[in-house]
Amino acid sequence: MKIAIAGSGALGCGFGYHLQKGGADVTLLDNWEQHINTIKEEGLTISVNGDKDNQKMTICKPHELKEKMDVIFVFTKSMGLNAMMESIEHIIGPNTKVVCLLNGLGHLKTLEKYIDRKNIIMGTTVWTAGIDAPGHTHFNGQGPVEIQNSDPSEKEATLEIVEMLQKSGLNGVYSENVNYTTWRKACVNGTMNALCTLLDANIEEVFQTSEIDSMLTRIIKEFAIVAKHQDNVILDVDETITYLKGVAAKVGAHYPSMHQDLKNNRPTEIDYLNGEVAEASKKLGLEAPYCQQITDLIHAKETILGITTAKAK
Amino acid sequence: MKIAIAGSGALGCGFGYHLQKGGADVTLLDNWEQHINTIKEEGLTISVNGDKDNQKMTICKPHELKEKMDVIFVFTKSMGLNAMMESIEHIIGPNTKVVCLLNGLGHLKTLEKYIDRKNIIMGTTVWTAGIDAPGHTHFNGQGPVEIQNSDPSEKEATLEIVEMLQKSGLNGVYSENVNYTTWRKACVNGTMNALCTLLDANIEEVFQTSEIDSMLTRIIKEFAIVAKHQDNVILDVDETITYLKGVAAKVGAHYPSMHQDLKNNRPTEIDYLNGEVAEASKKLGLEAPYCQQITDLIHAKETILGITTAKAK
Repeated sequence: MKIAIAGSGALGCGFGYHLQKGGADVTLLDNWEQHINTIKEEGLTISVNGDKDNQKMTICKPHELKEKMDVIFVFTKSMGLNAMMESIEHIIGPNTKVVCLLNGLGHLKTLEKYIDRKNIIMGTTVWTAGIDAPGHTHFNGQGPVEIQNSDPSEKEATLEIVEMLQKSGLNGVYSENVNYTTWRKACVNGTMNALCTLLDANIEEVFQTSEIDSMLTRIIKEFAIVAKHQDNVILDVDETITYLKGVAAKVGAHYPSMHQDLKNNRPTEIDYLNGEVAEASKKLGLEAPYCQQITDLIHAKETILGITTAKAK
Repeated sequence: MKIAIAGSGALGCGFGYHLQKGGADVTLLDNWEQHINTIKEEGLTISVNGDKDNQKMTICKPHELKEKMDVIFVFTKSMGLNAMMESIEHIIGPNTKVVCLLNGLGHLKTLEKYIDRKNIIMGTTVWTAGIDAPGHTHFNGQGPVEIQNSDPSEKEATLEIVEMLQKSGLNGVYSENVNYTTWRKACVNGTMNALCTLLDANIEEVFQTSEIDSMLTRIIKEFAIVAKHQDNVILDVDETITYLKGVAAKVGAHYPSMHQDLKNNRPTEIDYLNGEVAEASKKLGLEAPYCQQITDLIHAKETILGITTAKAK
């Protein structure tokens, strides 16, 4: 099976590494010169749950790959998805499946601009990863990766990919309701990421404040309304908050990725979380003031820090 | 005229100093031991718009003053008003006027728990002040001090105080609509203070973001609804925003007092600004989500910084 990883940062490298070990013909795609050169010259150095390995892998820039792929995993930041899809159009054939495991909301809309819905497979993963240096990454967790075909007719092809993910040690799972999983994950990111970033604090600190219930309830109510209207996903507000508190208790004094984005002067993914809920609410003739204000505040913070944001909407 | 300054921080010292020079019999009241002792031993050292002076002044703790006063100026932080009123009840006679120039909203309610409305004079001032060391303060600006009796029958007594303020160089002005002035000032503090504190930025930085119009409009709309319902004050949203931008342009790269409160680990006055609007909205059967969330976020930030807040409501 010919697989391209479109966006071979930390998570992309981790997936590519496992898929290659599982027997697939993997090409890593990326635009980071130094990262590409290091992997070409020295192979990918990767630490998986603490175990170090070095693996020879094929890597190039998107335009350098000439063949059509069977499966493409996209692993960009949310705001990079459009540009990535443009740069890989030439490797997408009529039956190429594109698997999207990005955080956030609204990616199906973006993908449908480039490919037929029947070839889109949406999913989520709880594998985590980081880059230590160009060509050096780490990859942690046990998964799973949950995926589901966007078009009901394509379940069989999706099950094949699930099988390949399992064989590769990535803990692939076929999801009967990937929209639900996606919204649940967006609830995690739309509360923990947003609040920790605004309050410049870690998850433990934020979840110990006496305002946490009030803040979570108001944000999640807005997510729940859009989830229901847009994807027929039922998010029970109280149950979701209990779930969030459970996640928070488990991760503890951790700074979420959005907080780290700002600290490192990178634009955040707020437009694909609270911002998406605010925009979607407008389209439904509703308001989502809590999500709207969080989005405004985070964007204002980006501007103040001199971060150029390619605003999505 | 026997005058007590109830709360002789920077602004209280500045007022007391001027009133004494204008011929009034002034007693400063405070609870800060070191400040009291320095003023007792060395007099008050004050710099008024850069001109330094030293003046012998009477200062003691509230319970040490035994006489009834003609006029009491209260100069506490918003959250200190209740405790101060309790500690000065014994110097309030049936005709003692209490002048309240505190920032924020809702102070009339607090004062009415202790004194008859006919003796309450509400006002605002744009004098600014700071403490350099115990017994050493500075006092800047040109005023004015705008005041108005809360009970229509008491205009004459209020005009006498205006005259005294004028004679003292404090630029006293009789206000025909002090509620309007108070709401306008609350709009300044409820936007600049709150946003600069949340975004950890100065006024210039916050007002240069492209989200500023969206953020101001949403906050001011909520202030305007409560101002109308509660005090019959009409705040035109667009005009108020133009005014705020004018103020912001004038003050520039300045960090407002609430930002400095957090930096110095002091509780903020958010409950008397956005918090008051959120609470008042609830009582009107409405919601003020933007003010509510700002209040929650600032309180969460206080908790994270380990600041004990005596929550007002």
